[in-house]
Amino acid sequence: MNEDKHVVIIGCGAGGGTAAQFARKTDRKAKITVFEKGKYPQYSKCGLPYVISGEIPEFEDLIEFSEEWFAKSKIGLFLNTVVDRIDVKEKLVIAKKQNETIETKYDSLIIATGATPFIPPIENIRENNRLVDGICVVRTIDDARKISSMIKKGGNATIIGAGLIGLEMADNLVKKGMNVTVIEALPSILLNTLDVDMSKIVCEEISKHIKIFTDYLATKIKNDNGKICKVVIKNNETDEEQSIFTDLLIISVGCRPDTSLAKTIGCKLNEKGYIVVNNKSETSVENVYAVGDCTEYIDFVTKKPTPIGLGSIAVRQAIAAGVNATGGKYEPPAGVLQTCTSDFFGLEIASVGPNISSINDSEIVTGKFNGSSLPEYFPGGKPITVKVFTNNSGKIISAQAVGCNAAQRINTFACAILAGMNVETLRKLETAYAPPVAPTLDAVTLACDMVSMKLNHRR
Amino acid sequence: MNEDKHVVIIGCGAGGGTAAQFARKTDRKAKITVFEKGKYPQYSKCGLPYVISGEIPEFEDLIEFSEEWFAKSKIGLFLNTVVDRIDVKEKLVIAKKQNETIETKYDSLIIATGATPFIPPIENIRENNRLVDGICVVRTIDDARKISSMIKKGGNATIIGAGLIGLEMADNLVKKGMNVTVIEALPSILLNTLDVDMSKIVCEEISKHIKIFTDYLATKIKNDNGKICKVVIKNNETDEEQSIFTDLLIISVGCRPDTSLAKTIGCKLNEKGYIVVNNKSETSVENVYAVGDCTEYIDFVTKKPTPIGLGSIAVRQAIAAGVNATGGKYEPPAGVLQTCTSDFFGLEIASVGPNISSINDSEIVTGKFNGSSLPEYFPGGKPITVKVFTNNSGKIISAQAVGCNAAQRINTFACAILAGMNVETLRKLETAYAPPVAPTLDAVTLACDMVSMKLNHRR
Repeated sequence: MNEDKHVVIIGCGAGGGTAAQFARKTDRKAKITVFEKGKYPQYSKCGLPYVISGEIPEFEDLIEFSEEWFAKSKIGLFLNTVVDRIDVKEKLVIAKKQNETIETKYDSLIIATGATPFIPPIENIRENNRLVDGICVVRTIDDARKISSMIKKGGNATIIGAGLIGLEMADNLVKKGMNVTVIEALPSILLNTLDVDMSKIVCEEISKHIKIFTDYLATKIKNDNGKICKVVIKNNETDEEQSIFTDLLIISVGCRPDTSLAKTIGCKLNEKGYIVVNNKSETSVENVYAVGDCTEYIDFVTKKPTPIGLGSIAVRQAIAAGVNATGGKYEPPAGVLQTCTSDFFGLEIASVGPNISSINDSEIVTGKFNGSSLPEYFPGGKPITVKVFTNNSGKIISAQAVGCNAAQRINTFACAILAGMNVETLRKLETAYAPPVAPTLDAVTLACDMVSMKLNHRR
Repeated sequence: MNEDKHVVIIGCGAGGGTAAQFARKTDRKAKITVFEKGKYPQYSKCGLPYVISGEIPEFEDLIEFSEEWFAKSKIGLFLNTVVDRIDVKEKLVIAKKQNETIETKYDSLIIATGATPFIPPIENIRENNRLVDGICVVRTIDDARKISSMIKKGGNATIIGAGLIGLEMADNLVKKGMNVTVIEALPSILLNTLDVDMSKIVCEEISKHIKIFTDYLATKIKNDNGKICKVVIKNNETDEEQSIFTDLLIISVGCRPDTSLAKTIGCKLNEKGYIVVNNKSETSVENVYAVGDCTEYIDFVTKKPTPIGLGSIAVRQAIAAGVNATGGKYEPPAGVLQTCTSDFFGLEIASVGPNISSINDSEIVTGKFNGSSLPEYFPGGKPITVKVFTNNSGKIISAQAVGCNAAQRINTFACAILAGMNVETLRKLETAYAPPVAPTLDAVTLACDMVSMKLNHRR
């Protein structure tokens, strides 16, 4: 390995930070420099809602790799530093920290610039080019601090977007004693993660704690002295309008990739503006890697490009980038499984595989099983519903679970998908059984049985 | 399908009962008859310890398929009925219910005669050919009722055998307020399920609740008026002896297969006396199947025969027997994974794959990871240790877990073993991540990373 090798990383989120860590693991002598525009080194964005509720005590607790860690690892970390320009010909990065200009040569460059919350076109959402007072996003520690400062017990909070982050915020705001309303433009919640029938199970359960409007679009903000007081929503079908009084409005409808730098150096972007990378995290530009929310990657099942919006995937891409950028070798699987999970109001959900709406219906067979986490005779069993999706030959392409240990059950499906396993094999999986732990036949295999029966009927 | 087909099943445990159920599912017209020597239809033996503690209210709650269910399913169920003789030439089963003799022809016969607890040769363990008062086994509802009748708060219970059932009994007797001592002849507990290092984690934790003597053999019983009062144990190494005062002694050192009937008709048995079956549950005798604890089967990984001692496997064999005996088709995987789990004093353990002691050490590479069930920054994470075993090429052959969600984590390994997966693939598995549910990188993949590192060092 080359002692003089210099790896420069732009962005110190889960992607950039992990890339730095694995670059260092792979090459103990390489020079590594990280530029981060914010004031914190790598921290868990996914943890933000739980600091807001107080479940995690301090925002600083989210920091996974401290400035001290970077110093000890001999990784140059420049916080509050914005990269202005990249010169690919000279292999030069020009950054600014306050009035200071930092010019540094790179051998490998890793772009981990992340994404920015999308602000939908709602009337009066901005005043003087800034979001109206009381309207927030959830992306950075600063965003979350702002939300925290606005929380009041008994107050009204409205969340636009019933995806994972929106519902995590709902849960955590309820913990702080707020009355929470969630507005979703689609016909049900969590539709990026769950099928409608699975989503309805969640909707029914969490509706005990919050008010949910599905199929409603937020159209207008009403302000009172420069502070939000109402949000107007309109039914997609009937055009019927309602006004919701709110002290706090959280926008959580997805992100747009931050790719302005990548664009200037000619990295290939897809039509939605994500940086295209291969499974070594290489972009179309030589010696330039990209990882995380600013990239798109291949879905393992469909082999079609899919944007990356999960910290867990960013970390895996970053391992590949960090190792490969320092001359090591690491090839992640040929695509992402998009395994994800969350927990709202004590209800665990998880899924793996491509969003099924992206696949032709006639090519899909589904099986669903709704049972208990324990044998029937054992007290304390919790509901678990598993749904599995296969192609016409029974090859498993995706799965979803709602209820007890949904995430670990979905990991088994993730393993099956990675192995290219057929439902006829998985349904015979010998799962672990003991009365206080799991039933003789688990929902994992019983959902597969349902598919098998359908496939056999067709034959 | 043949309307007149008659399937006769001997034994109505998890094996026999499930076989009857699947025979009925496969052929709605077949005649099905089940002979059971005990007085209950299919119930969960695994649930017995939890009725003893009162966690499950009644022994009757363990009954999974009632007499009514059998009647409704038009399956002839004869309880308290002992099969005397099988005539293979005439395809005839001769059974006795009290003074009544029942002769019935079969087309297919399924032997599910189970096993009987082994009673080790301990001095004075019997009086007049019966176990001394206060000495019990845990196999049937009647056994468990006997134990229940002997429980007294503050009393002393001793358990011989620190396997799954022995420790489950220990847990449940402590719940009833007894002081429990466990005697194990091997150098550590649970050695049929866990490696020594993994077993030590469990031993340390559960020693907070019970007294454990490992490497001790019970040698002698001392009686007082025909009732047990002491058990003498002797250290295997030092021959040092101790006397343990006890009100109740539970023997839990494994079982011996009940194969006397199978033997009379010439079913091939292995050297330990288990009935040899193939993956359709067929014995060496035509039209005769066998399932459950009386059989041996092939280990999926080693391809060597292994006795079946798990209800979950009996059920899967029984599905194969029930379906195939009625002319259907069901082939389980080519061998058993021996996936198993339990929970003692709130600590979950699980394992999959052959007992590693059966494999040459030089052919095995292990990796172990000890971490938390949640990201470091999230409060409430529970310890989880995962150990994975591969061969020299990195192919996964077995895995063990102790701690949070051990069973579901082991199911993922079970899937990987079933797929013949290499540790290099599994270590890159995209597991589900969310702060309140699971860490970015799960112990499942991190244990695989350890193996990968070792393998790469060798190269």
